[in-house]
Amino acid sequence: DPNLKIFSLNSNPGLAQEIVDFIGVELGKCSVTRFSDGEVQINIEESIRGCDVYIVQSTSGPVNEHLMELLIMIDALKRASAKTINVVIPYYGYARQDRKARAREPITAKLVANLLETAGTTRLITLDLHAPQIQGFFDVPIDHLLGVPILGEYFKGKGFDKENLVIVSPDHGGVTRARKLADRLKAPIAIIDKRRPRPNVSEVMNIVGNVDGKIAILIDDIIDTAGTITLAAKAITESGAKEVYACCTHPVLSGPALERIGNSIIKELVVTNSIALAPEKKTDKVVELSVAPLIGEAIIRVHEEQSVSTLFD
Amino acid sequence: DPNLKIFSLNSNPGLAQEIVDFIGVELGKCSVTRFSDGEVQINIEESIRGCDVYIVQSTSGPVNEHLMELLIMIDALKRASAKTINVVIPYYGYARQDRKARAREPITAKLVANLLETAGTTRLITLDLHAPQIQGFFDVPIDHLLGVPILGEYFKGKGFDKENLVIVSPDHGGVTRARKLADRLKAPIAIIDKRRPRPNVSEVMNIVGNVDGKIAILIDDIIDTAGTITLAAKAITESGAKEVYACCTHPVLSGPALERIGNSIIKELVVTNSIALAPEKKTDKVVELSVAPLIGEAIIRVHEEQSVSTLFD
Ligand SMILES: Nc1ncnc2c1ncn2[C@@H]1O[C@H](COP(=O)(O)O)[C@@H](O)[C@H]1O
Ligand SMILES: Nc1ncnc2c1ncn2[C@@H]1O[C@H](COP(=O)(O)O)[C@@H](O)[C@H]1O
Repeated sequence: DPNLKIFSLNSNPGLAQEIVDFIGVELGKCSVTRFSDGEVQINIEESIRGCDVYIVQSTSGPVNEHLMELLIMIDALKRASAKTINVVIPYYGYARQDRKARAREPITAKLVANLLETAGTTRLITLDLHAPQIQGFFDVPIDHLLGVPILGEYFKGKGFDKENLVIVSPDHGGVTRARKLADRLKAPIAIIDKRRPRPNVSEVMNIVGNVDGKIAILIDDIIDTAGTITLAAKAITESGAKEVYACCTHPVLSGPALERIGNSIIKELVVTNSIALAPEKKTDKVVELSVAPLIGEAIIRVHEEQSVSTLFD
Repeated sequence: DPNLKIFSLNSNPGLAQEIVDFIGVELGKCSVTRFSDGEVQINIEESIRGCDVYIVQSTSGPVNEHLMELLIMIDALKRASAKTINVVIPYYGYARQDRKARAREPITAKLVANLLETAGTTRLITLDLHAPQIQGFFDVPIDHLLGVPILGEYFKGKGFDKENLVIVSPDHGGVTRARKLADRLKAPIAIIDKRRPRPNVSEVMNIVGNVDGKIAILIDDIIDTAGTITLAAKAITESGAKEVYACCTHPVLSGPALERIGNSIIKELVVTNSIALAPEKKTDKVVELSVAPLIGEAIIRVHEEQSVSTLFD
């Protein structure tokens, strides 16, 4: 369909290429560079008048650069008479700033939603938002994809004995996600129940559920500094888990993350390419799964006005 | 007035401090830092409920960082019930992307205006917009300040003989600005009239007006890579100018700028602190004038609902 155009900006060019290969089209021609003073310069090198345009760009780090590239691209496409501007954000940055936890905090996840709509977004395709409520920050339609099926398929391939497997949520917020993975692997769940007995006393890690003698798979949406996940790995090992895997959709892996994971008992860290991993982050322990087929299929369905939700059955 | 609060973000803390010193108030307490993954983290450390808040932040380089800091701060202030959110942007970045010069270009200066309004800006105070038309990109009130009086005062102080002085615009776009400076110094103007006789033939620098034997002051709004200004200096020297000064409001000074100015005939480069100069940019030739009294006075007048335009009489 000549009216379908897919552009990549600078955050995930590899993923964007995989997506167009999956769909069987070429990437749209554009250059996204910087002027001498660092301002974003975008040139769209083919007509997109009347087209359904998809832009693939995670707002991963450097988040402000990637977000501004995206907003400026949307502006350019709008002024060039695109029919629809479908923004594909595999990793939605600022998602953890999604509520006022303290007085006078910004709600940057909502601000970003407003900025994307102001620029001219007509639809959003995204993956594992930190909180599904962020969908409500938008007025345009959203397709919210899930990474669990991809992670689940990978672990199925390992042929673990179900009786010996347990899926572990490193905190209360992630229980629903752990439940979804457990359903796919027909395994029970456990939860790390962190509690601070009194203010200024260190947290107690209590484990709800049985991990003793089991292979444990820790699951989270984002692994950033890897503090939560490596402490969780330690706690379940102390409770008898005999092998620990960790997985997440979005490998932010900032600061001490790789060192912590390297030094931990975690055997494999299984992630998706929603965030492009810098080469130095692709250590022996890291297994990267592609979300390109998932996103590619979602783009095809959106473009053909079919339901995307059945992708998760 | 306890209802007047002035905050500084990270682009011009020195200027912000000078502004509050001029007005005789304290800077509002806030911290603007980064999370481990590079996302902007803002904490406003005092109540601003019901206050008239002013934020001082140029969107100079790193422009995307400074712009996002500003948008997130506006969001936080709005949610913290500020009565008005007055954004003071001494240097408005992306101002040169103010029209579609080619097909499918963004108009980022307008996008930025929309983003600032979406975030919650209720008024803008800015200085020497690259094109005054950018005022029309906003729906909120704007106070548009001019740097020419400050530059003019500085050159008046030199006591040049008016008969021997000429103010030179390095291109057609800057003639109005050169005229304003010339009026203040009671000097004539000249214009560098660049022309490309045929495509792919190098430009011819023709000078309209008399520079022979004179002290010339080149004036521009922005000096970025300094290509225009140093070529202009060369051209007027070849036409007999005996001493060349250059001045601008906004010293972007990116890439080869300092080397070019260092190697040029230009005797002094006179700029304002609308953009904070990195220490290595403060060379012997650079003279920095402060816009703090101008902006401070504008804030006082806006806050007291008085006219700002008389600041330029
Ligand atoms: N980029 C970030 N890195 C670390 N913490 C963050 C970030 N953005 C927001 N937060 C904090 O993370 C908390 C939300 O995380 P959560 O409880 O997992 O939803 C909030 O208190 C935020 O202040
Ligand atoms: N940050 C920038 N650095 C250099 N050139 C720019 C920048 N932003 C926009 N431009 C270009 O500068 C031209 C406008 O400059 P002017 O003719 O001086 O208004 C446009 O053609 C833009 O493509």
